[in-house]
Amino acid sequence: MFRPEIKVLDCTVRDGGLINQWQFNDAFVRKVFVALSQAGVDYMEIGYKSSEKCFSRTENGAWKFCSEDDLKRVVGNMETTMKLSAMADIGRIEHEDIPRKSESALDMIRVACYAKEVDKAISLAHHCMEKGYETTINLMAVSKVLEKELDEALEDLAKSEVPVIYLVDSFGAMYSEQVLFFAKKYREALPGKELGIHTHNNQQLAFSNTIDGIVAGINRLDSTIYGMGRGAGNCPTELLLSFLKNPKFDIRPIIAIIQEIFIPLKAKVEWGYHIPYMITGILNEHPRSGMKAMAAEKLPDLRRFYEDLKDGAPLE
Amino acid sequence: MFRPEIKVLDCTVRDGGLINQWQFNDAFVRKVFVALSQAGVDYMEIGYKSSEKCFSRTENGAWKFCSEDDLKRVVGNMETTMKLSAMADIGRIEHEDIPRKSESALDMIRVACYAKEVDKAISLAHHCMEKGYETTINLMAVSKVLEKELDEALEDLAKSEVPVIYLVDSFGAMYSEQVLFFAKKYREALPGKELGIHTHNNQQLAFSNTIDGIVAGINRLDSTIYGMGRGAGNCPTELLLSFLKNPKFDIRPIIAIIQEIFIPLKAKVEWGYHIPYMITGILNEHPRSGMKAMAAEKLPDLRRFYEDLKDGAPLE
Repeated sequence: MFRPEIKVLDCTVRDGGLINQWQFNDAFVRKVFVALSQAGVDYMEIGYKSSEKCFSRTENGAWKFCSEDDLKRVVGNMETTMKLSAMADIGRIEHEDIPRKSESALDMIRVACYAKEVDKAISLAHHCMEKGYETTINLMAVSKVLEKELDEALEDLAKSEVPVIYLVDSFGAMYSEQVLFFAKKYREALPGKELGIHTHNNQQLAFSNTIDGIVAGINRLDSTIYGMGRGAGNCPTELLLSFLKNPKFDIRPIIAIIQEIFIPLKAKVEWGYHIPYMITGILNEHPRSGMKAMAAEKLPDLRRFYEDLKDGAPLE
Repeated sequence: MFRPEIKVLDCTVRDGGLINQWQFNDAFVRKVFVALSQAGVDYMEIGYKSSEKCFSRTENGAWKFCSEDDLKRVVGNMETTMKLSAMADIGRIEHEDIPRKSESALDMIRVACYAKEVDKAISLAHHCMEKGYETTINLMAVSKVLEKELDEALEDLAKSEVPVIYLVDSFGAMYSEQVLFFAKKYREALPGKELGIHTHNNQQLAFSNTIDGIVAGINRLDSTIYGMGRGAGNCPTELLLSFLKNPKFDIRPIIAIIQEIFIPLKAKVEWGYHIPYMITGILNEHPRSGMKAMAAEKLPDLRRFYEDLKDGAPLE
């Protein structure tokens, strides 16, 4: 699949950091930065842009905050066409905490929100655009949103200036049928806007759902190296770049860094296909109960875990 | 997806045995048999039907042979509607080694062959049908077969009495586009026959390719518990049963046996998504070089492994 409009955003440090509270040292993030840049990836999402008033630096590594000092230490003076992105969660950042683009190493800020917060997200995104950033809105957990509520959120987004809207399968619950359904809905509701897709791998469908997104005309693709991300992880960058036949991509730096860093890391930090995440995925539930099961010293009875979640799924 | 014609064949012991030379003890195979039966799976493929003249029992476990004594020890007198299958490889079994169906615990023999051996496969399959078995032919490694050669094989199969023909992605090289291409080709070339699909997970597409096969009208689906199978493994039974909305399926016995047996087993025996298998998959190569890399005490340089296989892929 070679379509020049397609752009890949690798969010290994941002989504992977959800597993270890962004406790990546500078050398790690620098190596990821260099490898992604050499691989021809379009954007690296290096962390969250969060307020230091909301979170502490003792509990969270630097990439929860992405201060300019943090960014400069890692990015240095390397010549690259790869752009840098950070994600902002609604309610966890103040407008004034965001510097002007001219004073930042960041190129893009992606605003993540639930459907019910879309007005706040649009306001923050417009603010980021005024400050000079590329901006997107990533509408999370839509597999659980009532269609009427989603349609209203899409109407608001259609009226906004935000140029890129992401379809997000937060729970890893979608099959290709759902991806095609949502992609069509978003395309019809959001004329003139570019679409993106962010998937989770609870059912081993993160990569194939991303491909289905491409087929449905989505051009902004999220992935993570070796699939590293919260819970079951994401669409693996190495698979995605190999699928995209664009000659600008080179998977060899990704293969090398997987061997150097990510295979050893995966022996210590858990992500990927595991039955607790599979169960939350097939039941279209937030992965938090799966993460709790995986973090326990001993796995709970998984048959019982499935039955409990199926019959009396806790309200969120 | 609920289509009553769909039948699931679990080949955990047969394909998983390729990893450990079928060194499963009777208790293991019995537990798999009971769990699959309780889960409502249609067929269990319990091993290969091979000649004891071709392989030794010291190197290979019982499920390389599936003698009637082996089968009876495990199947016992349990009441079940689940049928038993064994696979026969061309050249590794003599016609006279196959007992009559009336004297066997097996219900089905699936004949696996390469396109160039299709005449021998048809002859063996017809022989099995005469002896009273359900029979299929599984055409392996078609992602590497020249189209003319494949068309000729399909012509021969169309003229045969064999009622079920499998599309097999031996190298885990196919994307959904290829699955749809082959499914259409097989359907057009094989009027009146039922189609099956057997996938490998080198690119994390075994499950999604199976779904694409279903969408393309394929009704016989292979899977393995927890994806256990050679190299990157197969389409996981637990995911497939959950996707198929047929109320006859119950994934709870599969979840329970994964926790009891397969999670501990996976800590000792390697299968699943690993970069050497990913590389053979994206390059459409036999997994043997990936298996060699994985079996080495220390992984080879994977970037070099990729470059060597890409630039000078060894002839097979």
